[in-house]
Amino acid sequence: MCQLLGMNCNVPTDICFSFSGFSVRGGKTDVHADGWGIGFFEDQGCRLFIDPRPAAESPLAQWVRQYPIHSKNVIAHIRKATHGPIALQNTHPFRREMWGRYWVFAHNGTLDNFSYDGDTYYRPVGQTDSELAFCYLLTQLRIRFKKQPDEVTLFTALQEVSTEIASYGVFNYLLSNGEYLFAHCSTHLNYVLRRSPFGLAHLSDEDVTIDFRDHVGARDKVAIIATAPLTDDEVWTPFANGQLLVFREGEPLV
Amino acid sequence: MCQLLGMNCNVPTDICFSFSGFSVRGGKTDVHADGWGIGFFEDQGCRLFIDPRPAAESPLAQWVRQYPIHSKNVIAHIRKATHGPIALQNTHPFRREMWGRYWVFAHNGTLDNFSYDGDTYYRPVGQTDSELAFCYLLTQLRIRFKKQPDEVTLFTALQEVSTEIASYGVFNYLLSNGEYLFAHCSTHLNYVLRRSPFGLAHLSDEDVTIDFRDHVGARDKVAIIATAPLTDDEVWTPFANGQLLVFREGEPLV
Repeated sequence: MCQLLGMNCNVPTDICFSFSGFSVRGGKTDVHADGWGIGFFEDQGCRLFIDPRPAAESPLAQWVRQYPIHSKNVIAHIRKATHGPIALQNTHPFRREMWGRYWVFAHNGTLDNFSYDGDTYYRPVGQTDSELAFCYLLTQLRIRFKKQPDEVTLFTALQEVSTEIASYGVFNYLLSNGEYLFAHCSTHLNYVLRRSPFGLAHLSDEDVTIDFRDHVGARDKVAIIATAPLTDDEVWTPFANGQLLVFREGEPLV
Repeated sequence: MCQLLGMNCNVPTDICFSFSGFSVRGGKTDVHADGWGIGFFEDQGCRLFIDPRPAAESPLAQWVRQYPIHSKNVIAHIRKATHGPIALQNTHPFRREMWGRYWVFAHNGTLDNFSYDGDTYYRPVGQTDSELAFCYLLTQLRIRFKKQPDEVTLFTALQEVSTEIASYGVFNYLLSNGEYLFAHCSTHLNYVLRRSPFGLAHLSDEDVTIDFRDHVGARDKVAIIATAPLTDDEVWTPFANGQLLVFREGEPLV
């Protein structure tokens, strides 16, 4: 299994605080030591940092923890390998282009006997069930829509395909195209909404406290989604099993 | 205009020495200060570091210069913007997946009045003529072949499509799928082959000398391709106009 971390905001925000607590679970406070990755959207552009080394020891993760990249949509992942060996091509998040935008995806869970021939649009490069599911999911959307449809239509189609894939096992995922952050829960996923009035928060995994008043503006809205809550003094809302939420501008859409 | 740097080897090798001389051209010894990027293949996996800041000043470029990543195929680019504003989505190299492998592309030159509707397989995310040409090139290959064809067939098709695109302007490019490194020259491209007996080399852009005997094995073969020679004491071979070369395992294929 693995762990997921996502951030969706209304103003480009750095994820250093949350990523700091998250990445120590990659081999230090937890066992997810088989690689890590993080994808940042900046306007239509997207940067992906991936490394098959444990996040807790990776010099690149150290760089990412210290260097603030401001983004409205971030997806991070620490891996505990199940399907596919420890290798760069099996390291989440994965990225493809669809409808002229980048789509970034990370998965927690295991899918058994899930297969797909992959000839139409997207084929996996590595050996994970996760990348296979991502390619299938995008292919299904692209077969249905020649360009990005309206919000409700896209959301409904994504819910259908996600439910289908989830029938093969555990399919907790984060997906973003730089505008929306989609979060699907089979078993474990939680979110917290940070907004005015901002206060303090303390990491669960490191003895680090932040005062958000020093870092964000009064109108900022930040949603953090994670497999397990990252702070021990904020109210995290658990997802229901089978629930798909879509976040935009720092809050979940109804 | 921009500058290109590529490396193709028979053994995973780090590019720190060449990238060090190359990246100072991004705003220090030369004017290519509108972003930079570098893509490393590791087995089927691929890491891409891109940054819209000048390479000579970028903290990420500083990290890449110092941290040896070993790869058999590397493509780097420093940008002087012509088509498309300075932005992450316009920063080379670009990457797409085709036939279950990643393909990485960087371009030097300007294409005028080149267009393509991009509906079939690949669409650009940013606004550059370069990404548009890359999407067109992959689309043409994918329309012709459902899976990767043999070397000669692939090479012939690539030459045809490259010649077609080059008729719109200047089309110097580097392209790799992690096995081959393709290099096409409209105007400026040079390569050097490094192999036993290894000796010294001195950078043109910085007063740095390397003794390759301290860094590589006796059987290593390394091909370096660059817009302008990076060293002032090695024999660089200029490409002919219109020439496409394919490198594999550190040497050009006949």
